Amino acid sequence: MQEVRIPKKHLTEILDIANEWTVTNGVSFKAGIEGSENEKVTHAPYTLFPSQVPTPIFEQARQSMTEFSRVMHKVANDHSFLSRCLKNVIEVDPFMIGLWNIYLKVREAGIKQSLMLGIFRNDFMMTFKEGCKPGEIVKAEDLDLKHIEINVISASFGGLVEQLAKLHKLTLNLCGKQHSIIEMPENRPATGIANGLIQAWKLYNNSQAVILFLVDGKENNTIDQRWIEFKIYEQNPGVRVLRRTFIDFHERGSLSNEEKLMIDELEIAVVYFRDGETAENYRSEKEWNGRLIIELSAAIKSPCIQYQLMGSKKVQQELARPGVLEKFVASKETIDMLRATFADQFSLDLGSEGDKAVDMALASPEKFVLKPQREGGGHNLFDADMVNFLSEHRNSNERNAYILMQRIYPWQQQNYLVKPGFPVNLSDVVSELGIYGIFIGSSTKELENYDCGHLMKTKTSGTNNSGVVSGLAGLDTAFIY
Amino acid sequence: MQEVRIPKKHLTEILDIANEWTVTNGVSFKAGIEGSENEKVTHAPYTLFPSQVPTPIFEQARQSMTEFSRVMHKVANDHSFLSRCLKNVIEVDPFMIGLWNIYLKVREAGIKQSLMLGIFRNDFMMTFKEGCKPGEIVKAEDLDLKHIEINVISASFGGLVEQLAKLHKLTLNLCGKQHSIIEMPENRPATGIANGLIQAWKLYNNSQAVILFLVDGKENNTIDQRWIEFKIYEQNPGVRVLRRTFIDFHERGSLSNEEKLMIDELEIAVVYFRDGETAENYRSEKEWNGRLIIELSAAIKSPCIQYQLMGSKKVQQELARPGVLEKFVASKETIDMLRATFADQFSLDLGSEGDKAVDMALASPEKFVLKPQREGGGHNLFDADMVNFLSEHRNSNERNAYILMQRIYPWQQQNYLVKPGFPVNLSDVVSELGIYGIFIGSSTKELENYDCGHLMKTKTSGTNNSGVVSGLAGLDTAFIY
Repeated sequence: MQEVRIPKKHLTEILDIANEWTVTNGVSFKAGIEGSENEKVTHAPYTLFPSQVPTPIFEQARQSMTEFSRVMHKVANDHSFLSRCLKNVIEVDPFMIGLWNIYLKVREAGIKQSLMLGIFRNDFMMTFKEGCKPGEIVKAEDLDLKHIEINVISASFGGLVEQLAKLHKLTLNLCGKQHSIIEMPENRPATGIANGLIQAWKLYNNSQAVILFLVDGKENNTIDQRWIEFKIYEQNPGVRVLRRTFIDFHERGSLSNEEKLMIDELEIAVVYFRDGETAENYRSEKEWNGRLIIELSAAIKSPCIQYQLMGSKKVQQELARPGVLEKFVASKETIDMLRATFADQFSLDLGSEGDKAVDMALASPEKFVLKPQREGGGHNLFDADMVNFLSEHRNSNERNAYILMQRIYPWQQQNYLVKPGFPVNLSDVVSELGIYGIFIGSSTKELENYDCGHLMKTKTSGTNNSGVVSGLAGLDTAFIY
Repeated sequence: MQEVRIPKKHLTEILDIANEWTVTNGVSFKAGIEGSENEKVTHAPYTLFPSQVPTPIFEQARQSMTEFSRVMHKVANDHSFLSRCLKNVIEVDPFMIGLWNIYLKVREAGIKQSLMLGIFRNDFMMTFKEGCKPGEIVKAEDLDLKHIEINVISASFGGLVEQLAKLHKLTLNLCGKQHSIIEMPENRPATGIANGLIQAWKLYNNSQAVILFLVDGKENNTIDQRWIEFKIYEQNPGVRVLRRTFIDFHERGSLSNEEKLMIDELEIAVVYFRDGETAENYRSEKEWNGRLIIELSAAIKSPCIQYQLMGSKKVQQELARPGVLEKFVASKETIDMLRATFADQFSLDLGSEGDKAVDMALASPEKFVLKPQREGGGHNLFDADMVNFLSEHRNSNERNAYILMQRIYPWQQQNYLVKPGFPVNLSDVVSELGIYGIFIGSSTKELENYDCGHLMKTKTSGTNNSGVVSGLAGLDTAFIY
């Protein structure tokens, strides 16, 4: 970004202001989880300026959100489709087996809550079309928008990025760059997520019941969660928010009259999961049991177990097969819009189709990425790691736990990535664009469906995984031109 | 406060929310000033709930602010009155001598800037009238409002308290206590202070010149200052704010054309002092020289040297003498209003009047406090310390550096004082009420004069000094009933 090259002295001043702005305005992580460090905060990694996105690309991502949410909700309600997609995965992946068993128990007990609340984030990358060489200004028509994943559980950073969006307006001002409401639109995912939780709470229809944030209890990313809690109080001061862990539910949770979810004598209207997205979150049977109690209840869950299954990579890969979207969407136009963003995806299930995919990946490893059924960064295998895994498990059904996906080489820009304890320099960076979406519905009715803001996750060019909590990537927002 | 007794379990939850709210919304101190601690923040000490103030008492404090600012501005412009007041002090107090010498040099060089900017905070205590016993609800007519001091340099916490005011609305909500806009009025001192700085910047009339925050450079209370900076950017994105120290001015500051204040090739329109209020801030001649360069310039200073002299305890004591207010105020009504808030004050200057005051203090030490010419907490002498000092310096002119003041025993309430690393319990506390005021004028014209919000400083009952930065007192706001 030409505009962000600024003299070193002025840069230092803007950086000082930005660093103090972030910790003052809650673009923050806990400094640590133990003792006095737990009372301190430090800034989350962030970019000093927003990264660029052409208007048509941004609109394409935004507009596909509500359609994609609708599709995914239908998928989650289609038992036979889910079963078929996950058949091979739940033979080999212990985590998916755990989720699947809960799903079966919920079905067996009878579904106590017909409403489902989705708090989603769809992540995309921008990549150059074949043959396109970037000039000084990158045009929308040179770019392809490629869908990377849908996050359906603990989709994070809505709180921090709503604050960061305000900082980016300030940093642009500080280096004399004017901006319009189109270039820097309002970006309020935390407000939108809080609204979704309150709408669900109202639908539960007991003003004495509370909203529960299901948390890890030992994590440094609590501020992001608190923002959503604070926005709830702002929008409806009458709602009480609790924070409890899976272990709390294992130890003290109960089902009153076989369905009401209770803890510490309080009835829970809505459970918002900020834990439980991956195998590591279930350290013992206690966590699985806590999850089960919640899922068996009449509380509205974000996500319910069906949603989490629907969010797996395997389902996304099956959905990308020719003809499959057509089962869930009537409009040809919508199908085309969604399919245009799908990256190429391949089943690795044992069999000839999977063998073909393995051969393809081994022949050109640079063109692919290997993805397990997990959300959140850091789980994917690239390059030599992918080759080693596929060579080793060529004839083992362990490969069923993965899908193969076209590897995206995203558009490279320049920005300043600010991480606590690291020097700040103008660097080559690449970004993911995430769109937040809220969905509330039953198997027959759609009650809420809206998109609510965006996140850019930006990392130094050349690093593969992109965790913000692990400090590999920084929070960012879009400058739309 | 009856209403704040809440069950321990619910209290813990409200405390958790409040602690994360404060560090997320910038009611914060730096965790430390060195290395990585400098990148972290922790919450400032604060009260979990607002403390009570009866409406007439609050209004009395608020309404006296603009009148008092007007008086003090006149005092600062009255050379012979200042000289007379400070005659004996500047024989013995090295700090006051330092300020006085700068004042003389400024006068000698000719005053380059006729406009003065006051960013003041008047501190009051509420005390029971003689014979009044507090019942369940304290009535305004049982209370006396007593003026404690005017802060004219580095009057702090406007930034933190503007944020805290929002928290107090939330904590009341969280324990189910409704409140009206009268009980919890808008409280935005940082916004008001930023507006004062911008008005002064406009009056300087050079859009290329900047606002300078004169800071210590090694302090943990920078967030409070940053809030005012952020409010400036909000109100006028075109203004640039710099932070520099006295040493920076000693080393790189200059007077261009004998009057324009320059540093690092930038012209300074307004200097806002957040350092220099006390002797300890001037570690060497370098700091004094930095201050001198600033005072000799045409920059608008908050405060200018005259204001700082006017803010000394000695001037306040002389102003409290019968017949003195009448020199500066025409309206009998205004005089009565101001004088009603004055505590009894006595000169300790060597001589018979001072001797009488010393005898009085030694006879009933519990009725008095000994105050040097300093702003900020922690400098006053009470009880045995006072007796020792007065006994030792009974016949020495060192006592000229102090004044004797009626000791105030403030109204005791209950509240939860929250300090990092300390357990939180419902405690007996006492509060100071501070009113922020902005004044801009020359010796002949008044251009701005408004009050802008309030601060309560609350400490455990029985402790004498009340520094917030030192952790003895907590930030608080008023619940007005």
